[in-house]
Amino acid sequence: MENTALKEMHTFSDDLRAGLYKAIFERRDVRGQFLPDPVPDDVLARVLMAAHYAPSVGFMQPWNFMVIRSPQVKQQVHQAFNKAHSEAAEMFEGEKRDVYRTLKLEGVMESPVNICITCDRDRAGPVVIGRTHIPEMDLYSSVCAVQNFWLAARAEGLGVGWVSIVNEEEMKDALGIPDHIVPVAYLCVGYVSHFFDKPELETAGWRPRLALDELMYFDQWDQSAEQEGFDLKGAVRRRMALAEQGVFPPEG
Amino acid sequence: MENTALKEMHTFSDDLRAGLYKAIFERRDVRGQFLPDPVPDDVLARVLMAAHYAPSVGFMQPWNFMVIRSPQVKQQVHQAFNKAHSEAAEMFEGEKRDVYRTLKLEGVMESPVNICITCDRDRAGPVVIGRTHIPEMDLYSSVCAVQNFWLAARAEGLGVGWVSIVNEEEMKDALGIPDHIVPVAYLCVGYVSHFFDKPELETAGWRPRLALDELMYFDQWDQSAEQEGFDLKGAVRRRMALAEQGVFPPEG
Repeated sequence: MENTALKEMHTFSDDLRAGLYKAIFERRDVRGQFLPDPVPDDVLARVLMAAHYAPSVGFMQPWNFMVIRSPQVKQQVHQAFNKAHSEAAEMFEGEKRDVYRTLKLEGVMESPVNICITCDRDRAGPVVIGRTHIPEMDLYSSVCAVQNFWLAARAEGLGVGWVSIVNEEEMKDALGIPDHIVPVAYLCVGYVSHFFDKPELETAGWRPRLALDELMYFDQWDQSAEQEGFDLKGAVRRRMALAEQGVFPPEG
Repeated sequence: MENTALKEMHTFSDDLRAGLYKAIFERRDVRGQFLPDPVPDDVLARVLMAAHYAPSVGFMQPWNFMVIRSPQVKQQVHQAFNKAHSEAAEMFEGEKRDVYRTLKLEGVMESPVNICITCDRDRAGPVVIGRTHIPEMDLYSSVCAVQNFWLAARAEGLGVGWVSIVNEEEMKDALGIPDHIVPVAYLCVGYVSHFFDKPELETAGWRPRLALDELMYFDQWDQSAEQEGFDLKGAVRRRMALAEQGVFPPEG
């Protein structure tokens, strides 16, 4: 088969690409818009399946999925958050501290189900193919599972918020997690009243969306000039201009 | 608006969900099927845009995207891989070592473009909202960008392979990356002759796909019994049975 035919064969149709890109560009970190309605088993099973098919170093699949619905356990996690949140506020100064205190940063109690995605660092023995030189690769695999979970949840109409303001040991205590297991992500999950158009921290003026073209280097760090015959930066700038107008891939 | 109506409003149509799930379940780590054809700027711009819209702790957007096409730079990365690969082979014993040596684990030279996704740990100053208690959160953000990149690439018909068998310092030398920047993922990117049905390590008998239902716990670590009124494990087992028949969400 000709290469052109092969390329076309493997490229998704416009409709299919639209579904992926919609999930990517409309995904939000949800903290405050949860509805109490339960998530049906079949829906959550699809989302967990998506997480389980994430890439993993050495096909290690280092993750477990803890499903938390117990109000007592959620309360304990919530208390650990509150403690860390107070400590965190003290680290900011002046106006930033005032803004920080106004931000809603978790929905542990309001969301009907919480999911903790972990990493078992011993899952495949001490020597893991692909992890021999970068030991963090197993943690990164679990993060890939988190992102798959998040995108699938968005497509199913579910909001997800990642709770990271918490002391890891207190999280492990709350969930009974043993030493060699890392709780990579604690996620609040549920249906929502609405998804925001933009990230809440962007809207709050905490930090702006960075310009993608300024984050690109070519062949060497700090080298902004492109190889001859390519204009990837130009293409990225056209994308950025479209995004300003609310147009995202695959459109444009 | 009623909750039922809200839920329906935010849930993607079957067609849109199909696009996301197709990317998730047909994504592969590609090492050996790259075509030399260049990736058009517009296509790569869409994939980079998808990566840039990943979640990031404190809206930190800690990533840079290094685009590597120089044969000299690729050669240097390839040499770093070869060295690490030889070291890695020595870590396996007996039959595993023989199998390890037969595996094709990277496509640095054959793929037309390589992308290094990094993490600038100083991007937003020393105190980052959401990173106050778990310092790795910025690295995890860059990994979310990697997964978005990977899924968008799949939808665009592009194969991606993550090269992790490499000494990090040698990778930084090859790319001129300064001290405070972490090269989170080095990706080989290009069109491909084919995508495999299953992960190559699964087909090679290196490790099997784990049973998702056995990776689930409820409320506490090691607690396999589910709360009354839920049968999430049952739903997951139906999903697993469908997957055995090659049926993946949103079907079934």
